[in-house]
Amino acid sequence: VSRASRGFPEAEYRDRVSRAQTLMAEHELAALFLTTEPEIRYFTGFLTRFWESPTRPWFLVVPASGDPVAVIPSIGSHLMGQGWIRDIRTWTSPDYDDDGIGLLAATLTELVPPDGAIGVPNGPETHLRLPLADWVRLQAEIGARRMSGDALILQRLRLVKSGREIEKIRTACSIADRAFSRVPEIAGPGEPLERVFRRFQALCLEEGADWVSYLAGGAGQGGYGDVISPATDRPLVAGDVLMLDTGLVWDGYFCDFDRNFALSPIDTRVAAAHSRLIDAASAGFAAARPGATAAGLYHAMAGELGDTAGGGRFGHGFGMQLTEWPSLIPEDDSFLEPGMVLTLEPGIDVGDGKILVHEENVVITETAAEYLSTPAPRQMPSLGECE
Amino acid sequence: VSRASRGFPEAEYRDRVSRAQTLMAEHELAALFLTTEPEIRYFTGFLTRFWESPTRPWFLVVPASGDPVAVIPSIGSHLMGQGWIRDIRTWTSPDYDDDGIGLLAATLTELVPPDGAIGVPNGPETHLRLPLADWVRLQAEIGARRMSGDALILQRLRLVKSGREIEKIRTACSIADRAFSRVPEIAGPGEPLERVFRRFQALCLEEGADWVSYLAGGAGQGGYGDVISPATDRPLVAGDVLMLDTGLVWDGYFCDFDRNFALSPIDTRVAAAHSRLIDAASAGFAAARPGATAAGLYHAMAGELGDTAGGGRFGHGFGMQLTEWPSLIPEDDSFLEPGMVLTLEPGIDVGDGKILVHEENVVITETAAEYLSTPAPRQMPSLGECE
Repeated sequence: VSRASRGFPEAEYRDRVSRAQTLMAEHELAALFLTTEPEIRYFTGFLTRFWESPTRPWFLVVPASGDPVAVIPSIGSHLMGQGWIRDIRTWTSPDYDDDGIGLLAATLTELVPPDGAIGVPNGPETHLRLPLADWVRLQAEIGARRMSGDALILQRLRLVKSGREIEKIRTACSIADRAFSRVPEIAGPGEPLERVFRRFQALCLEEGADWVSYLAGGAGQGGYGDVISPATDRPLVAGDVLMLDTGLVWDGYFCDFDRNFALSPIDTRVAAAHSRLIDAASAGFAAARPGATAAGLYHAMAGELGDTAGGGRFGHGFGMQLTEWPSLIPEDDSFLEPGMVLTLEPGIDVGDGKILVHEENVVITETAAEYLSTPAPRQMPSLGECE
Repeated sequence: VSRASRGFPEAEYRDRVSRAQTLMAEHELAALFLTTEPEIRYFTGFLTRFWESPTRPWFLVVPASGDPVAVIPSIGSHLMGQGWIRDIRTWTSPDYDDDGIGLLAATLTELVPPDGAIGVPNGPETHLRLPLADWVRLQAEIGARRMSGDALILQRLRLVKSGREIEKIRTACSIADRAFSRVPEIAGPGEPLERVFRRFQALCLEEGADWVSYLAGGAGQGGYGDVISPATDRPLVAGDVLMLDTGLVWDGYFCDFDRNFALSPIDTRVAAAHSRLIDAASAGFAAARPGATAAGLYHAMAGELGDTAGGGRFGHGFGMQLTEWPSLIPEDDSFLEPGMVLTLEPGIDVGDGKILVHEENVVITETAAEYLSTPAPRQMPSLGECE
């Protein structure tokens, strides 16, 4: 099993900071102020599942020049110190009087001129990970410095993945490929869906996932009602379609794709719908190249499905997160560039309020697209004979 | 294997809403406005891993009287519709012109009087899950209605768990108990830590976890440097202490405890430090009863450790999240009440920048505390002979 190597060389982080600082200069931002896991990890490499705990805030300041400054709870200093960031300022959190805001305000006051603008990600798919009362307090403690949007700098940087990032995503996808190929070992008639979900996650781990951040899916006669539900204890029965959609993680990078399986005998209309979905994803793949738009990929896929198109957007970016910009919807006119990593995720209405979805992962190359997942066959794999 | 049943009866949600509305009346709040996973799930039962995707915002409005109103992306309407919430208002997200803010503002305008105050969680351990630009836009679209804090109403409600919540947490803890008892099957000299992490997660799933949201730990000679790191590929060697700390989930509720294991021969000072940690946790347990304070539990544990106490706070609440209020620190004077669920998590400095930690899970009863995890023995279990 070939694998990317873990981590990034310091040069990769310095390149990210340098590109950010170029954009900051264009937009007259004296600093970026970051609070969420992917934003902070993007510049520091700080990788931990400890973000699952909402207790403590974490801060990173990227100044107009020079290296980023981490302002973090002391519980994180050992791990942060193992990366390339040298200026790590800590406080003992939780602190009910001042949970890092004083230290953060002092840092911003030091790094940002008195009339400077501080860019905070405020656009689509972002949020501020900080108690609202502390956000108000912070603004009161930084004098005339202004908090403004980040001019989508984080989005623009993260939209295009580096070669090393792509290799990590490719590794994650290949792990999921292998796990999906083993679904016949764990799913068949009589198996409760919740047990299938559990055992599928174990397969992902066995095949090399660091952890499995996302698994959703569905099972039902002739399709499923949605694609975001957790499992029930309903046993699989003949005639069901089983769909598993996973976002597993390797070294901090996701895959995000699904597979459908048929419990024989499968309705011929459902089998035909699955083939149409595969054709739609293939049409999206054929259209995917630098200069095409996100909307163009949507239309390429929707064109194969006609008025049966359904199930939401037809794909999206991903990488450090399960889903990222752009969205493959008619309203997204983002141009594709080499290094963008996307899901192609057409959906089809199969009647009675049910849908089928299908999803592949691709990377945009200099001239075309390349699959990161191993494309699924037109004919839905059958689990019927296997148990 | 005995288990709690999945879900809650509608009466449990109605009780939560009723208690919220009583507190809202005391604080003259005309509505609560909620945006995060645990806040929305607490009142609706909406359980999905789809929150892993940052793309779409989700909103819940709890009015001063009457049932909550969900304002959510249409991709969630099928799942939300299977719960008890009847008023579900949806839009197709992502929408680059208006990602639900117009619909949300109309809902708030309908449910809140023109001069009413809307409570938004803004205190410790909270954040607003909504792009900052949309937050600004929302406030401009609701007229003279004021956004204010939630008077810690969410915190006050969630601090005390219901009997059904405790049974779910007990189920999660018993799954982790069984997984920890099987660590000798997967860890021993020569085994890389990252493989131990993977296989431990698989054990958690095999023993019944729905998913494993958190696993951290460490391994090293005589202790470990921190407790939040992901695994490296370093193989375990004789003399290591291995610590695994998991937050696995059953029906939306966490456990959160760790276990230490010795790879023989273990340093006698490390063995003694482990025994002192167990004694510290026992002292915390003995002190835990209604009327004691969070700080009191800290001091009971710290008293056993003297000047070797280390590693951060000595425990915290948990339940729907891996960590919740209160914190077992000297500054937290929260009184314990029956139904509160806590970790007891003393840490000890063992020199050379290394620490040991130990963690148990308990629930406060009418008169004392009860273990939810099976307490660890004073003598660290040895893995040396097992492979």
